Amino acid sequence: VLSPLRRRIVGTTMRAGELSRSDLARRLSLSRSSVSPEISDLLAMGVLVADRHSPSTGGRRGALIAPAGPGVAVLAGVDIDADRVSVALTALDGTVLASDTLEMDAAADPAIALRGAAEMIERDLAPAAGPLQALGISIAADVDPVTGRPVSAPTMPRWADWPVCDFFAERFGVRAFIDNDVNVLALAEAAHPHTGPGLGPSFIVMKISRGLGCGIVVDGKVFRGSAGFAGDLGHICADQHDRTLCACGNRGCLEVLAGEPAILTEADALADEGRSPILAALREQHDGVLTLDLVGAASAAGDAAVGSLLRDVGKHIGFVLAGVVSFFNPSAVLVSSGLGGGEDILLNGIRELVYQRALPFSTRGLQVMRSHFHRDGGAVSAAVLAAEGWLGMAGTVAERRALVSRTSRSSVVTDGTGP
Amino acid sequence: VLSPLRRRIVGTTMRAGELSRSDLARRLSLSRSSVSPEISDLLAMGVLVADRHSPSTGGRRGALIAPAGPGVAVLAGVDIDADRVSVALTALDGTVLASDTLEMDAAADPAIALRGAAEMIERDLAPAAGPLQALGISIAADVDPVTGRPVSAPTMPRWADWPVCDFFAERFGVRAFIDNDVNVLALAEAAHPHTGPGLGPSFIVMKISRGLGCGIVVDGKVFRGSAGFAGDLGHICADQHDRTLCACGNRGCLEVLAGEPAILTEADALADEGRSPILAALREQHDGVLTLDLVGAASAAGDAAVGSLLRDVGKHIGFVLAGVVSFFNPSAVLVSSGLGGGEDILLNGIRELVYQRALPFSTRGLQVMRSHFHRDGGAVSAAVLAAEGWLGMAGTVAERRALVSRTSRSSVVTDGTGP
Repeated sequence: VLSPLRRRIVGTTMRAGELSRSDLARRLSLSRSSVSPEISDLLAMGVLVADRHSPSTGGRRGALIAPAGPGVAVLAGVDIDADRVSVALTALDGTVLASDTLEMDAAADPAIALRGAAEMIERDLAPAAGPLQALGISIAADVDPVTGRPVSAPTMPRWADWPVCDFFAERFGVRAFIDNDVNVLALAEAAHPHTGPGLGPSFIVMKISRGLGCGIVVDGKVFRGSAGFAGDLGHICADQHDRTLCACGNRGCLEVLAGEPAILTEADALADEGRSPILAALREQHDGVLTLDLVGAASAAGDAAVGSLLRDVGKHIGFVLAGVVSFFNPSAVLVSSGLGGGEDILLNGIRELVYQRALPFSTRGLQVMRSHFHRDGGAVSAAVLAAEGWLGMAGTVAERRALVSRTSRSSVVTDGTGP
Repeated sequence: VLSPLRRRIVGTTMRAGELSRSDLARRLSLSRSSVSPEISDLLAMGVLVADRHSPSTGGRRGALIAPAGPGVAVLAGVDIDADRVSVALTALDGTVLASDTLEMDAAADPAIALRGAAEMIERDLAPAAGPLQALGISIAADVDPVTGRPVSAPTMPRWADWPVCDFFAERFGVRAFIDNDVNVLALAEAAHPHTGPGLGPSFIVMKISRGLGCGIVVDGKVFRGSAGFAGDLGHICADQHDRTLCACGNRGCLEVLAGEPAILTEADALADEGRSPILAALREQHDGVLTLDLVGAASAAGDAAVGSLLRDVGKHIGFVLAGVVSFFNPSAVLVSSGLGGGEDILLNGIRELVYQRALPFSTRGLQVMRSHFHRDGGAVSAAVLAAEGWLGMAGTVAERRALVSRTSRSSVVTDGTGP
């Protein structure tokens, strides 16, 4: 286990990608002489490396410190969505060592889904060069901050109270960390060395899948709301004229208009009615089942009917996000979906409504853009959660109270730091 | 000027109302021996008092420390709204020493409004027992965080870039602090010794006047958004069926449906059409001009038509707040209006829609209630801003970057602490 100072050194280096010893000391508000011995030890342990040299700045050229690549600490990420389970193994520097996806009705059977995820990790770990240090889980459900277990989600009711963390912690003998998928995305975006700082201190990351939710970053930290349920966008009213009943009992919910099932139902209708021959052909090539990937591909191929569908979906989302932008004044709205090449037109629909409805003051400087973690990136973002948890960076982004871990021997262990 | 540690001691005591030396040391994460000499000095200076004794807890009975009442430090608060200017003088312990209001078209003439406010303060200061230490200004407009001057507000365009802080700082020779009225309300609620802690760490305070905005508290601090414009509720769409054009160029904005002018127009119609004889009588008694006070009084007197009007206004607000609650998951929504006894029925309209539209998870534990600072409390909340600024508590609630002060001699001075 790393000492608190060593954790801070590794975590800060991870966030920065690479940096000089002086920069590192400055970011930690410590003297160079107090961090130097610790850095030397971490270099000797192989957790950090000092390969590249910084460009000359008129003074001495110092080696740049960076987190170790493959071979030292391996982190596992598991992403659990209603219709698939994905895993990824990464190095501390973010290099993806392996990744795997199992398309299945995960909502229906937690036990089979977890076993599938564990087997994928074991298969991928075998050729991995280093020891597994920690595991992070991203799940499309809210997580009870006390028990660390999923609470009942409309899209994944069978996962309620399932001991997901315990399962992985016991199977692999490492600490496991769990959080709601959009909070994990927000954490990973904030920690992303190349983009986190550029996003500004307060932004949101929205995910489009069966449900529609967002992770919220306030001053660099994930904000979960007073009871842990912030970021629910799916049940905000997006259309007072719409009469479709939502699972929540209301009408006009964004989820009914812009969730994955709504998009696929509309897309199937376009294919059925001959309005999108491209989509009909793609569907036939894929066993008659459309996915967001295929819808995005049809849009990217120039299909006007599909483009119009995605623009309309974007406008529904944009109507709700206009309210969020007025209320929250974020510097960026990042969108993660499985639409691939279709995401651009969706983003334009979102932008259209946000710029139409929110006041110029709130949108000056606002970026509406793709998340770095698209649908296949969920497991990679969960590996970031594992790294942040392992490094004890809980106080900076992943907050302790949502991180409940269990080792193979003891019962529930919570990180002893703050707040 | 108080040293940073003394400021923290006074500020913490102010927040708590009163507390023992041990509790104070604990809250500051310091030893009793390091705070004791500072406390003794502050007692000698008269900034703190040690009158009451704590109830016996089996050990020694220690004196409770409290902020000084009238006679030592006087703080002034100025609240500038479109149709009135209010001032209040308070002691450090929150005792209101004097307050005064000038009903006038403040939106139309900043110079006359400011002169009127200064004259009220001078009149009230004469009999006040102690020296003025600092002045806080709450204004119904956004404030540029760099210049400390109002930016163009649709309801108060003439105040744009007016050197409001400079005016008071020069006139009274004290530091002056300014912020948007709803941010000041949020700050004052968070700092309120009897309620701040009970509200939970993250809540919003909404104000109903010409515009509709809210202050946002995240983990005890006022959150202003990435560019300082968070909390705009007035231009979130509250009714997609409504065709009334808003000043912002959109339709269906909450401001058009639930702002003070909208309420008064509807109330006038009720009086004109004979549907509310009570309101017609009240209007006649008040020179033919209705105010929110009178509308509230008619509702409190049992007028069904007015009650129905306020319930409908509440439902429009509740529709927008349901989205805010889903997104932000606050522990409390506080409402400040000039409706007096009519606020209860408005609150019920708000609650109805919030509980109808937001998911049970988000609303479990949610409090929807009146703010402690109703319309006449704006100046008192501005005096809290003065106290927080004077004590350098900027880092804890009032954030430095929105607090720009100017002394009578120097140019813009910003507090050197944080973020």
